[in-house]
Amino acid sequence: MNEPKMIQQMVELGERSYPILIDCGLLDQRGLVDELVGNADILIVTNTTVGPLYLHKLEKFLGDRRIDSIALPDGEAYKTMATLELILDQLVSGHYGRDAVLVTLGGGVVGDIGGFAAATYQRGIRFVQVPTTLLAQVDSAVGGKTAVNHPGGKNLIGAFHQPSAVIVDTDTLQTLPDRELSAGLAEVVKYGLIMDKEFYGWLQDNAERLIEREQAALQYAIHRCCFLKAAIVAEDEREAGRRALLNLGHTYGHAIERCAGYGEWLHGEAIAAGMCMAAEFSEHLGRISADEVGQIKSLLSRLRLPTAPPALNVDEFLSAMSIDKKVIGGEIRLVLLQSIGAAEITADYSLNDMTALLAEQLAT
Amino acid sequence: MNEPKMIQQMVELGERSYPILIDCGLLDQRGLVDELVGNADILIVTNTTVGPLYLHKLEKFLGDRRIDSIALPDGEAYKTMATLELILDQLVSGHYGRDAVLVTLGGGVVGDIGGFAAATYQRGIRFVQVPTTLLAQVDSAVGGKTAVNHPGGKNLIGAFHQPSAVIVDTDTLQTLPDRELSAGLAEVVKYGLIMDKEFYGWLQDNAERLIEREQAALQYAIHRCCFLKAAIVAEDEREAGRRALLNLGHTYGHAIERCAGYGEWLHGEAIAAGMCMAAEFSEHLGRISADEVGQIKSLLSRLRLPTAPPALNVDEFLSAMSIDKKVIGGEIRLVLLQSIGAAEITADYSLNDMTALLAEQLAT
Repeated sequence: MNEPKMIQQMVELGERSYPILIDCGLLDQRGLVDELVGNADILIVTNTTVGPLYLHKLEKFLGDRRIDSIALPDGEAYKTMATLELILDQLVSGHYGRDAVLVTLGGGVVGDIGGFAAATYQRGIRFVQVPTTLLAQVDSAVGGKTAVNHPGGKNLIGAFHQPSAVIVDTDTLQTLPDRELSAGLAEVVKYGLIMDKEFYGWLQDNAERLIEREQAALQYAIHRCCFLKAAIVAEDEREAGRRALLNLGHTYGHAIERCAGYGEWLHGEAIAAGMCMAAEFSEHLGRISADEVGQIKSLLSRLRLPTAPPALNVDEFLSAMSIDKKVIGGEIRLVLLQSIGAAEITADYSLNDMTALLAEQLAT
Repeated sequence: MNEPKMIQQMVELGERSYPILIDCGLLDQRGLVDELVGNADILIVTNTTVGPLYLHKLEKFLGDRRIDSIALPDGEAYKTMATLELILDQLVSGHYGRDAVLVTLGGGVVGDIGGFAAATYQRGIRFVQVPTTLLAQVDSAVGGKTAVNHPGGKNLIGAFHQPSAVIVDTDTLQTLPDRELSAGLAEVVKYGLIMDKEFYGWLQDNAERLIEREQAALQYAIHRCCFLKAAIVAEDEREAGRRALLNLGHTYGHAIERCAGYGEWLHGEAIAAGMCMAAEFSEHLGRISADEVGQIKSLLSRLRLPTAPPALNVDEFLSAMSIDKKVIGGEIRLVLLQSIGAAEITADYSLNDMTALLAEQLAT
């Protein structure tokens, strides 16, 4: 197979448009972002796991300029206001100006919290995402959602703040733990389920190539997801409508994360189980068949993902669902499947039905 | 004199356009914002000084719906991340949805911090400003700048988030302490100095009417300021250019506030002294005459405002100026007067000259 060429996928948002660059070896291409960054001072936000692996390489990539870095403790449990303040403190004490650029190096937590720091320091400075996990590369690094968690719920405090570029060096996936790779694949499956039946079929045919980290397969999947996400974000940047489809499995999944304790389940693992719960409820409402639910679970299993939540208390779970951001006027709006490749966001269901099924789902 | 009619000044920002309503007795006009707010849940953010005076009236004004409130401790010293988190905690624990509306009732601190909570809760909910100080009515409540202070500098953490409406009930000025009224007049003078020579002349002719809180004079001044601010914000929402003129005296003034200790000087008092410092430097550079500087100080004195900073350490002051948000690439950009009624933002001056003058200014 030929070496794939660098892919450039634009996110079209008028004057806030930006490129997603996808290729192996991107971080060796010194000078790639020179035009974008100019001679700005840079603060790199990374974590204690990813920093030792790629920080030195990223500093060389960014060239000769003032570059400082901060390494956050690793994990969802640290995606808090307190950690956000560590970054802001360093920006202030370093006398960073409005023209500075923040660069995030890591997974979804680093990108979300670093992006939120960029959104709020001096009311917004530029930032560049360098996602190093599959989940961040296909989903969280694209689209400008930034946030920290609140003890009351995931991502409850945040901002929409688009990056100036997203640099996806797929070489970084070679050091990703198996469990993290699978977690990212949960979001990949999500794109197929909500809006791309053909891609879903490709995933069924190529699941093992992805698990085996075959570069061409990974790059194809990443580009397809970024293409789909770019289209949705361009259409509905602030999630007034269609963008909410990207939350398939997330109202259930966020409740799993919260009730199991942040950090116990990886986000992608919770989303996999959450998508199965949403699929089961879709089946219960007669939208998809039991056979299709079985197919979804089979694919997720082949990708080494959970297909059911842990045993949890129904009342606590419902309470966690009801603080999620999809709640409008007290109604829990759910993303449900109409078929494989098509989804809708709706509150048009019986809460009793949903709760009754929940009792079964959480008793396993 | 006839009772003035309600003034409606629009801030034109496309789909984010909103009205500023100005009149006495507005908070008695129940139903005024019904169309805007719909049946949304409301959290009122106020402080322990203003709450007892106007909270009950505001609750009646907002009509029959779910309304909770939080009263922050009063003062600039509490414009912090910790206070922000109190508001966010209440939004989370109250299970407020994305469709909720936050209403700020108070001065600049309440508006800035409440607006920042609205900007970041669930990545942004709607908010309505009900400013009760002159400073907030003519300046801080309009234009979408929200922020908290950092120990390293004023307003360093924040967001641009436009309100859905600004309700200026000028009756609230009757309970405003004299010192706060004067502080607001500093920002009023600012508009004349930077962009409206005719209004500056009017202020020279009507200073005592304002100090005596004559309704017609106050409403005229408030509307003129809101008109000027609306025009600037519509042209340059995110302060890429001309909006920075509104910072006349602010780089100096923020340094006074910080070096004197937040809360010792009112913001408007620091801005008055800061505008005199900027005027003196403008004179030093040959842009305006000593006579004009004298006129500015005379007007501010009649408005019972300081015209010079306290005795402060020059190095600490310079350090405080250099963390202000107008710094780009290490240069301290200052708003300087070209004449009375015209200003520019510039870094085209000798730092040595500025520092030498600073030593004189801070020695008084």
